[in-house]
Amino acid sequence: MPDDPEVLGWRDGRIVALDQTALPQQVRQLTIGTVDELVDAIQRLVVRGAPVLGAAGALGVALAVRQAERHGWDRDTLDAQIDRIRRARPTAVNLGAGVSAVEPLIDQGPDAVQAAALRLVHDIAEANHALGRRGAAFLRETCRTDRPLRVHTHCNTGSLACLGWGTALGVIRCLHESAHLGHVVVDETRPLLQGARLTCWELAQQGIEHYLICDGAGPFVIAQGLTDAVVVGADRIAANGDVANKIGTYALALAAAAAGIPFLVAAPESTIDPATPSGAAIPVEQRPAEEVTAILGMPVAPSRTRALNHAFDITPAELITAVVTEDRIIRWGR
Amino acid sequence: MPDDPEVLGWRDGRIVALDQTALPQQVRQLTIGTVDELVDAIQRLVVRGAPVLGAAGALGVALAVRQAERHGWDRDTLDAQIDRIRRARPTAVNLGAGVSAVEPLIDQGPDAVQAAALRLVHDIAEANHALGRRGAAFLRETCRTDRPLRVHTHCNTGSLACLGWGTALGVIRCLHESAHLGHVVVDETRPLLQGARLTCWELAQQGIEHYLICDGAGPFVIAQGLTDAVVVGADRIAANGDVANKIGTYALALAAAAAGIPFLVAAPESTIDPATPSGAAIPVEQRPAEEVTAILGMPVAPSRTRALNHAFDITPAELITAVVTEDRIIRWGR
Repeated sequence: MPDDPEVLGWRDGRIVALDQTALPQQVRQLTIGTVDELVDAIQRLVVRGAPVLGAAGALGVALAVRQAERHGWDRDTLDAQIDRIRRARPTAVNLGAGVSAVEPLIDQGPDAVQAAALRLVHDIAEANHALGRRGAAFLRETCRTDRPLRVHTHCNTGSLACLGWGTALGVIRCLHESAHLGHVVVDETRPLLQGARLTCWELAQQGIEHYLICDGAGPFVIAQGLTDAVVVGADRIAANGDVANKIGTYALALAAAAAGIPFLVAAPESTIDPATPSGAAIPVEQRPAEEVTAILGMPVAPSRTRALNHAFDITPAELITAVVTEDRIIRWGR
Repeated sequence: MPDDPEVLGWRDGRIVALDQTALPQQVRQLTIGTVDELVDAIQRLVVRGAPVLGAAGALGVALAVRQAERHGWDRDTLDAQIDRIRRARPTAVNLGAGVSAVEPLIDQGPDAVQAAALRLVHDIAEANHALGRRGAAFLRETCRTDRPLRVHTHCNTGSLACLGWGTALGVIRCLHESAHLGHVVVDETRPLLQGARLTCWELAQQGIEHYLICDGAGPFVIAQGLTDAVVVGADRIAANGDVANKIGTYALALAAAAAGIPFLVAAPESTIDPATPSGAAIPVEQRPAEEVTAILGMPVAPSRTRALNHAFDITPAELITAVVTEDRIIRWGR
């Protein structure tokens, strides 16, 4: 599965996508033949994860151009349809970036657009792979042990989110391929359980030994010495090195610092935002209370219970051992 | 409900217990007539919470003595059955303490055992009330603010866990009754969701404003300044002040220390175990993986996913501002 291009791919002039809302109960592939279908898939999180959204934006332009050809759309209609893709999720910067990367090629015809989109998909996967190798080397050097490393991670940062390889999970996979990985500890990642549903599924596909834990157990598992290093992804990295990532990350960083083990953030260069001076300037998305008061649609609290649902938290740079990107290792903090 | 003695009571020679696994969807009372049924109820968490377990231990001896009388057990058989109650769960010291408190009266006959057990149940409820008042006064003094306090708590430590008043939730209730409480932040407390299911239910019954959050969000909510103090219960307190409590507690203690807000442990004197030198000597119960891989019976991870399920964690004394009991304030740590 991890090398399967079908997490998001292109076949016979259509996008093929793995339906991430159906995992792990069902492995279901969707064929997306129109802009309408693509916008719907993005909004329902069938297609999710920042790098995957970048690829979806690029492939979406190729899709729109093919559709324009079939239906004889004029340029204004085509532009309006492409704009719908760009705006399908207003906060995901990668989606618009993917669209913009291939849009200038429209005048060169459908084949040029398609080739550029496929090249971008390939480049995204390649960047993740370079990041994974660098992160794995960093951890082996930093942990200074001969035995296989036990690595703790949060949320889903694997091929499902990142197209073919992964960021934090890509680091883990590189350790596995060079036989330097012991096991992986996976936080379930409430409220939407991406760790339990997606990361466990990916690790099982790759034959990597792993143990699922509840989010509240993470800091104690670290304190007990059951893990050698924590590796997570990032949604935005401020200019001072503060990191916004899935809610629950900060607790792991506190525990890793207390236990004296490395806390590594793995993210592409595009995640670093020089325009954001520090974590305090990062807007933290509040999602619906129902994601907390119900789990997979089943109520777990009395009706009318109010909830706070921060989608991300901020980990200050001083708790982070290093940030690894496809180009470099950056040490702002610890 | 909070003052309803039927959270755990004694009727016609049997234990009556509110089935805490059925809340908040159902308010269901169980009658427990044998040691087998009691051990099962304790292990399935029908009966749960450190002080309630103390009462269950005492009432369990009374139950065993009645059963011995009916079935003509010899003393060795009776002792073996009582030992099964004592060992039904390993971490909470209260269960064994409840058993030991009434066991010496066995030679005086069933009525004496029963009277001692009921006295202990009464004393546990009384002690909780004194503890609540002392803890509330401590927080008001420590937080040094005139505005109502916003208090963060974990798991369920209210009347459901504690017979009539509560430990940490008893402190919160005392703040509420004296109009010093703003709102309560409630961790959902995976895997069994005692915070979402039970604490939210109790707070709603008492008309106390509260917000449910996912466990992973707790440390960030504290870092954001959304809470003035953390108050939790305890399942065992070692001689050096290290505290075993529901998994997820340690993360809050790390965050409270980082934010410079008080972290208060509210527990009866009986929770302090002088025989346990430090947290490292406290056995931490491992519960079934299925509590993690499924939520309320619904699978959330791929089948065959392995899980670690520590029921408790250990918070070192240096992260704890104070322990409040029915008799005193103890400062081992911070």
